[in-house]
Amino acid sequence: MAMSWHMMMEFEPPLVGCVISDRNYSFGLLNAAAECVINIPTVEIAEKVVGCGNTSGADIDKFAAFGLTPNPASRVGAALVDECYAHLECRVVDKQLVTKYCLFVLEVIEAWIDPAVISPKTIHHLGRGNFMVAGETIKLRSKMK
Amino acid sequence: MAMSWHMMMEFEPPLVGCVISDRNYSFGLLNAAAECVINIPTVEIAEKVVGCGNTSGADIDKFAAFGLTPNPASRVGAALVDECYAHLECRVVDKQLVTKYCLFVLEVIEAWIDPAVISPKTIHHLGRGNFMVAGETIKLRSKMK
Repeated sequence: MAMSWHMMMEFEPPLVGCVISDRNYSFGLLNAAAECVINIPTVEIAEKVVGCGNTSGADIDKFAAFGLTPNPASRVGAALVDECYAHLECRVVDKQLVTKYCLFVLEVIEAWIDPAVISPKTIHHLGRGNFMVAGETIKLRSKMK
Repeated sequence: MAMSWHMMMEFEPPLVGCVISDRNYSFGLLNAAAECVINIPTVEIAEKVVGCGNTSGADIDKFAAFGLTPNPASRVGAALVDECYAHLECRVVDKQLVTKYCLFVLEVIEAWIDPAVISPKTIHHLGRGNFMVAGETIKLRSKMK
């Protein structure tokens, strides 16, 4: 699936919160398996991302339909999508707000990144098929983690 | 304060989840007032944002220290920061996960945007003072909201 709504929730252990509509096929899969991989795409495969977002795994094999390559993960059953530059293997650690908000709290238990990708042009959904593409990176003096 | 960790949680009513460390002065203020304004800055004021993120309202007046202008909001006591191009007036609607994750669920009850700002160069904290600046916007055919 394509996921827009997510955020960091903690550094140690690394937690990611994500909201997945219960109208999505993926909601039931994640709820049952309690593990997943977050694959992080860049603008080069934006059409494939939108394709995944506009179809259902209940109807088609998205790997075949969009020319994506599943690689085995190390600690979960879900796949690393080879066309993405980074992958977070996660397990669901808190379902307390799943019923009310469709909010899953995930712990990242393994992380992979392609070291050849220096400035990934990530894409960020603004709504209705509009995406902001990551621009330049700036560094400022900060005490923030 | 400067806030990195937030996400959309629902369209109707518009909900935003945000994680605010309980080591921050702002945590206590938000917990007590149960309302706030999310002011959205752009790269033009990035230095002021980092300044706000590296100081505490317990020690200084950040408006004075960083040359920011408070304007009254319409429905909450917190201020609209004039130097930001968009403002979301919010009230806290769920504190269920505040103790465990410092997660506040906010409902946006009023929203303001400067119509003169067409492609806001928003900034996105990558960690340790590194920020991704919003790049170009692309539009793809999509059924997604």
